[in-house]
Amino acid sequence: MKQGTVVDHADYTSRLSRTRQSIAAAGLDGLLIASQYNRRYLTGFTATDHDITESAGLALVTRGTFGLLTSTFALNGVEDEITPSGVSALMTDNDTLANVLARALRDEGDVKRLGFEKDWLSYATYQRLHKALGEVVELVPTDDLVELVRARKDPAELATIRRAADIANRAFAMLLGEIRVGMTERQIAATLERHMIELGAAEPSFPTIVAGGPGGAQPHWVPSDRPTQAGEPLLIDFGCRVDGYCSDLTRTIVIGEPDAKLREIYDIVRRAQDAALEALQAGGRSGLAMDAAARKVISDAGYGKEFMHSLGHGVGLAVHELPVASRVRVSTPEAQAEMARIERFEPGAVVTNEPGIYITGWGGVRLEDMIFIGEDGVEVPTDRNPAQIVSIEG
Amino acid sequence: MKQGTVVDHADYTSRLSRTRQSIAAAGLDGLLIASQYNRRYLTGFTATDHDITESAGLALVTRGTFGLLTSTFALNGVEDEITPSGVSALMTDNDTLANVLARALRDEGDVKRLGFEKDWLSYATYQRLHKALGEVVELVPTDDLVELVRARKDPAELATIRRAADIANRAFAMLLGEIRVGMTERQIAATLERHMIELGAAEPSFPTIVAGGPGGAQPHWVPSDRPTQAGEPLLIDFGCRVDGYCSDLTRTIVIGEPDAKLREIYDIVRRAQDAALEALQAGGRSGLAMDAAARKVISDAGYGKEFMHSLGHGVGLAVHELPVASRVRVSTPEAQAEMARIERFEPGAVVTNEPGIYITGWGGVRLEDMIFIGEDGVEVPTDRNPAQIVSIEG
Repeated sequence: MKQGTVVDHADYTSRLSRTRQSIAAAGLDGLLIASQYNRRYLTGFTATDHDITESAGLALVTRGTFGLLTSTFALNGVEDEITPSGVSALMTDNDTLANVLARALRDEGDVKRLGFEKDWLSYATYQRLHKALGEVVELVPTDDLVELVRARKDPAELATIRRAADIANRAFAMLLGEIRVGMTERQIAATLERHMIELGAAEPSFPTIVAGGPGGAQPHWVPSDRPTQAGEPLLIDFGCRVDGYCSDLTRTIVIGEPDAKLREIYDIVRRAQDAALEALQAGGRSGLAMDAAARKVISDAGYGKEFMHSLGHGVGLAVHELPVASRVRVSTPEAQAEMARIERFEPGAVVTNEPGIYITGWGGVRLEDMIFIGEDGVEVPTDRNPAQIVSIEG
Repeated sequence: MKQGTVVDHADYTSRLSRTRQSIAAAGLDGLLIASQYNRRYLTGFTATDHDITESAGLALVTRGTFGLLTSTFALNGVEDEITPSGVSALMTDNDTLANVLARALRDEGDVKRLGFEKDWLSYATYQRLHKALGEVVELVPTDDLVELVRARKDPAELATIRRAADIANRAFAMLLGEIRVGMTERQIAATLERHMIELGAAEPSFPTIVAGGPGGAQPHWVPSDRPTQAGEPLLIDFGCRVDGYCSDLTRTIVIGEPDAKLREIYDIVRRAQDAALEALQAGGRSGLAMDAAARKVISDAGYGKEFMHSLGHGVGLAVHELPVASRVRVSTPEAQAEMARIERFEPGAVVTNEPGIYITGWGGVRLEDMIFIGEDGVEVPTDRNPAQIVSIEG
């Protein structure tokens, strides 16, 4: 399939109208969008911001305006990307972004309270906007208005995520035939990433983690020049991006025969994954319920402390997005309200299910699959982690 | 050489003391550091922040404190990284970052004005800190305090950048023997990136740009599935990261024979590069002077409008950093003062020299080398772009 085909069918009209509903429900007259993911979701503009200091532009949604504040440098040659969404380009070539925004708002006339994405806008940009907009427009910090719209994927988005999952599955199957004792973690990561790109992915969705033995006990492990050894857990966390959408999977395998301890730990983690999936299949529609089901299996087996992260997260244009599947850590009323908001699974949500057990000096076992939340049931578009650890010849 | 060897020799004492001087000169009692590059430069902590919403921690420098506010999740297993810098870990596992910071400042007692990096801190984090620090500490937005310290590289940093440049040079030489007519841009990019990693780079320093023909007219071109063709300019912009430090090079080559137009454009761009280098060799020590010298060559040849970007930028832990080499666009007194500040070349600066000409429908020629600014002379650690376009057999 030609790249871009699926995204051309994106339902931009629905995205914009659902965003406008969220804005109105928050008591605002408009929203200034700084997240590169939200910007792409609404406008189709595929530019990426490598750092907060290198933004390719902001989007503006009010009752009367749907604009993309950007420069010719960023938009030149990719104007076609934004045609399907109908967004108007508001060029910042000859004036500051703040002044262009002020003019657009003045032209519209009735924007008094303008939301902005407080987690995505730097203080410096806020300060410049505040100065330019003066007393006429009140800038109101907001949370997750577009993120919650994005959490409900439409069929075209699900099809794209399915492709990203499929490529990751196939690349991993190719890798399994190639791993040998003594290959370094970096070699394994590079091989897997190459396969994903050969199969049509644009890029890895995040830097691939390959951790043999002790390194696997560290969630943020960076692949090293350490050669893999027989008998130790080999944890591989990877995914790819297709038309902007991510996959995210983790497999733990072993070269040669696993010992009793590795079999035991793998079995516990796999049963935790099953329990989370069963909680969803039984009708649970929250990350809290899903996390609790998996965590109970691991705690009952005596490894509660060795599972120190959340069970899962949404996946889409961002590799980590809403909804989340975690526990309540701080139990204030505010924290509970926040959790209820971000842990609710609506139909169309895509979440990871990734329990793990991490033992210092020994290693880690994490199993991660992706789950599509439907109206009635759920679906796992990744090859499921098998019931028993895959042992490959070294 | 073993990875990490060079960074172990980093002169953290000098980095910290120069930063404290900058803080005092700005009339501040301390600085809260949000840039991942500044954090790594001062503390040695190599964590990367993939998005502004996923920060691995902040650094704090006051007269009495040198701290890293982070979590066990991020620091576990890499504690050794921060030992040489002597930074104290201030853990945020059991309390909010804002409360941990407030306690550290209360313990120290005499911090009244605390700077923060306004371009790197989100409004949301600023708001939380402002609430927690209350009226006791005044939060003062700052610009580039550590960036200007980083702009003067020490010998260990220059040695690391030299390694990153050398790997990029060698990877490109390997690629030259492999390019054939019909290879797609994505295949060329993937091959080049693989070579850099095989030669010891940790990763590409940015997504490699490969643009054959018309695509080259777009500065932000993303490699496509378009097969390369004989006779058209093939622009390749690439680099790698070694121990955190970046290289950044651009070559424009041709498969088969270049026509008269391609020869002409290449010659102009190459002469612009020479002119910039000569301006530096003649003692010019500012980005403004360097940019003007290159731009004059291109403008005199009638392509001034087709060179629409800055001439160059600093390179180090970030692929774009200080100093910059560009023109004055807005000529207010404030803009001129700002330019004087960020365009000054101190000994130890590393800058790119990358003029280009971009012609819609035809393509682009950009030539980019890196320059080390010394006390007396300058040095080009990359293989220089040759005087005439390299033509390879297809």
